[in-house]
Amino acid sequence: MDDHAFQTAGRADTGRAVAFSDAVFAIIITLLVLDLRPPDVEPGRLLSGLLQQWPTYLAYVTSYLYVGVVWTNHKATFKRIHWTDRGLHWANLGVLFTTALLPFPTAVISKTMSYGNLADERTAVGFYALIGALLCLSWLVFFHYLTRHRELVEKNVSERFFHDERKRAFTGVALYSLAGVLGSVTTPAVALAIFLLLPVFYGLTSEGLYELPILSHRLRSQ
Amino acid sequence: MDDHAFQTAGRADTGRAVAFSDAVFAIIITLLVLDLRPPDVEPGRLLSGLLQQWPTYLAYVTSYLYVGVVWTNHKATFKRIHWTDRGLHWANLGVLFTTALLPFPTAVISKTMSYGNLADERTAVGFYALIGALLCLSWLVFFHYLTRHRELVEKNVSERFFHDERKRAFTGVALYSLAGVLGSVTTPAVALAIFLLLPVFYGLTSEGLYELPILSHRLRSQ
Amino acid sequence: MDDHAFQTAGRADTGRAVAFSDAVFAIIITLLVLDLRPPDVEPGRLLSGLLQQWPTYLAYVTSYLYVGVVWTNHKATFKRIHWTDRGLHWANLGVLFTTALLPFPTAVISKTMSYGNLADERTAVGFYALIGALLCLSWLVFFHYLTRHRELVEKNVSERFFHDERKRAFTGVALYSLAGVLGSVTTPAVALAIFLLLPVFYGLTSEGLYELPILSHRLRSQ
Amino acid sequence: MDDHAFQTAGRADTGRAVAFSDAVFAIIITLLVLDLRPPDVEPGRLLSGLLQQWPTYLAYVTSYLYVGVVWTNHKATFKRIHWTDRGLHWANLGVLFTTALLPFPTAVISKTMSYGNLADERTAVGFYALIGALLCLSWLVFFHYLTRHRELVEKNVSERFFHDERKRAFTGVALYSLAGVLGSVTTPAVALAIFLLLPVFYGLTSEGLYELPILSHRLRSQ
Repeated sequence: MDDHAFQTAGRADTGRAVAFSDAVFAIIITLLVLDLRPPDVEPGRLLSGLLQQWPTYLAYVTSYLYVGVVWTNHKATFKRIHWTDRGLHWANLGVLFTTALLPFPTAVISKTMSYGNLADERTAVGFYALIGALLCLSWLVFFHYLTRHRELVEKNVSERFFHDERKRAFTGVALYSLAGVLGSVTTPAVALAIFLLLPVFYGLTSEGLYELPILSHRLRSQ
Repeated sequence: MDDHAFQTAGRADTGRAVAFSDAVFAIIITLLVLDLRPPDVEPGRLLSGLLQQWPTYLAYVTSYLYVGVVWTNHKATFKRIHWTDRGLHWANLGVLFTTALLPFPTAVISKTMSYGNLADERTAVGFYALIGALLCLSWLVFFHYLTRHRELVEKNVSERFFHDERKRAFTGVALYSLAGVLGSVTTPAVALAIFLLLPVFYGLTSEGLYELPILSHRLRSQ
Repeated sequence: MDDHAFQTAGRADTGRAVAFSDAVFAIIITLLVLDLRPPDVEPGRLLSGLLQQWPTYLAYVTSYLYVGVVWTNHKATFKRIHWTDRGLHWANLGVLFTTALLPFPTAVISKTMSYGNLADERTAVGFYALIGALLCLSWLVFFHYLTRHRELVEKNVSERFFHDERKRAFTGVALYSLAGVLGSVTTPAVALAIFLLLPVFYGLTSEGLYELPILSHRLRSQ
Repeated sequence: MDDHAFQTAGRADTGRAVAFSDAVFAIIITLLVLDLRPPDVEPGRLLSGLLQQWPTYLAYVTSYLYVGVVWTNHKATFKRIHWTDRGLHWANLGVLFTTALLPFPTAVISKTMSYGNLADERTAVGFYALIGALLCLSWLVFFHYLTRHRELVEKNVSERFFHDERKRAFTGVALYSLAGVLGSVTTPAVALAIFLLLPVFYGLTSEGLYELPILSHRLRSQ
């Protein structure tokens, strides 16, 4: 394809990739609402029926927050992308794929926690860690692709930006793997703590690592 | 981030936040259609089977109308926003979250009404009031954020506008709380009346309080 | 609101109303796919299990085609609209509401036809006629609103256009009502014939009545 | 309609057809996530319960990849379309219809493979081949329409492009039919091999046949 054709193609593409991603995120984020249903209880026991569904509520809230974090990260990333090509489309489809999986291990954990069997809790925690690591891995691939294809990136984005983003994604792969091992071998609570902290970390750094006050000083002084 | 980067970011952001919100609203508004299904009845009893599902129909219609009201309010609000930032994205995710919950308590109420147990009716009414109050609270946070971040608001929007919107949202928090208390303690019918009136109020004032003829005189003469 | 504010508002609004409608149509049109599932049969009986689900397939195909017809009509209509206001938003929400109902009576008919009880067939046919008439009624309201609010319509659209569209919608209300009465009193097959012909009629006239060769002569010679 | 009206219509239409298609693709691609649920097992047996669901995972992954392939093809095609008309809308609705069917035969195959009955495997394979052939047929119709309506195509697209795309689609119709016959008569594994190869072929040639290194030489030297 010649230069002009590439540009015509690219310009339209970012729009469609973003619109498609937004629709997928919107579906994922509202998917677990389907599990929120009036409990099947005998008359007079609605209140306890509603309260007993707490693992469903917990799964819904945590999935919602996590997908919200992914969405703000996705938005911040695509803001810095000017053209797309087929490779980036597939890297993006990878991110959407792993994000769409998130509600599944979340539901497994919340269901397992409601009856409390140690073997199952270890399985659930290991499963969640696996999907979490895959999610971060898909972002790692995405950012890596962008460091190799500078021509797709907006001009005013510094060379270092997507290199740092790779570190951010790699942190997740490492910590989820660690959480999976710790949670499966020792006590699942350790893993749960890491599971809760990681989305908070990604939420706070959705515009890049330099946003963290503690890091921005060191990065800027480099 | 410097001024230019902020503008580039902001301009794109409003579009994506709106597109994402529209997709979420579209999913919420059509979600209860999934509950509309041919009844499982013996041959010859289709008519009575269809009629017995009336609580489902009622829940569908009221949820649809309420989400329609939220959508027109959301549209009217974003029309007045020029830039978005991360804080506003999360405030918006809060509004989408509480709106997505709406069909759940609506279904609980309609199901409870179909067999009529006073304790359950009080629970259902209290539950609906809780979610309704949370919905208004999420709008209150959203409007409050805008009064504190004038730089995100369109220039031709008066300073007073989002201050008044906060009052509109606070009215909802107060009235839903009141309805919850009244409905749980006295008769649930009192709460249902408030539940029906509040969406009508928000539907009529989607472009702001000054639209109400009774208020527009007083507001304009100030 | 002053003239300038109205224009700023309107310009953005058409876009969001269209995007929101498209998302709703997309959900409705893919909703019945959820009913297409591997049959629960004993090993060796997959083929007969798949074949026995034919009413589900029929319901899926007819719903899909009908929603497709509504979408092309919606597109052709909004192409002729320049501004929107709150009244038109609610008229549009009415059209989306009745369209979202379509798969429900379609599923009821296809399920009823698979076991064949005359009383149930009459009920199913009457129910479908009711929803069909409501769908056309919602379009009638929509078109009527546009004839009363010329300022919302694109300048190059003739005065007569939405008057003719009203006739097109009224035809549907009348014929669905007739089909409902005929099908409930005499044989359901009469109603089914009308049910099949009406979407074809609306599909062929999605750009207006003058498209029908038989009518275009008469209309143009007026 | 006069020339000017056609242009106004066409320009808006491509946008809406694309937005609508993206929403439909987004729904199809996330549809099978609904089947990923915590298994109903006794305490202590979560791991084996999760592992036993492997046919569901396989169906999810393959459907996701295939819909991803269709989406990149759809994007590459619409990039080359300037105007749309009613015929093209219906051809597009045909492509969306057959794509939406894909998860169904995929689920049938994965479910059948998990218990292994030869007659059922042949049925499943024949069913998948039928839907696969229909999918390619809908693309064939789409591309054929574009070869007949050059006025809808972007000016810088060569005359030969959509002629070649027709060949690409016809290959699919022929190979799916062949796979269906072979798989139903001989061993299903032959069909599965073809099923796996075809999406890979379409994924690699989403921007046209000339992209394949082996073909680009011959085509360019013509």
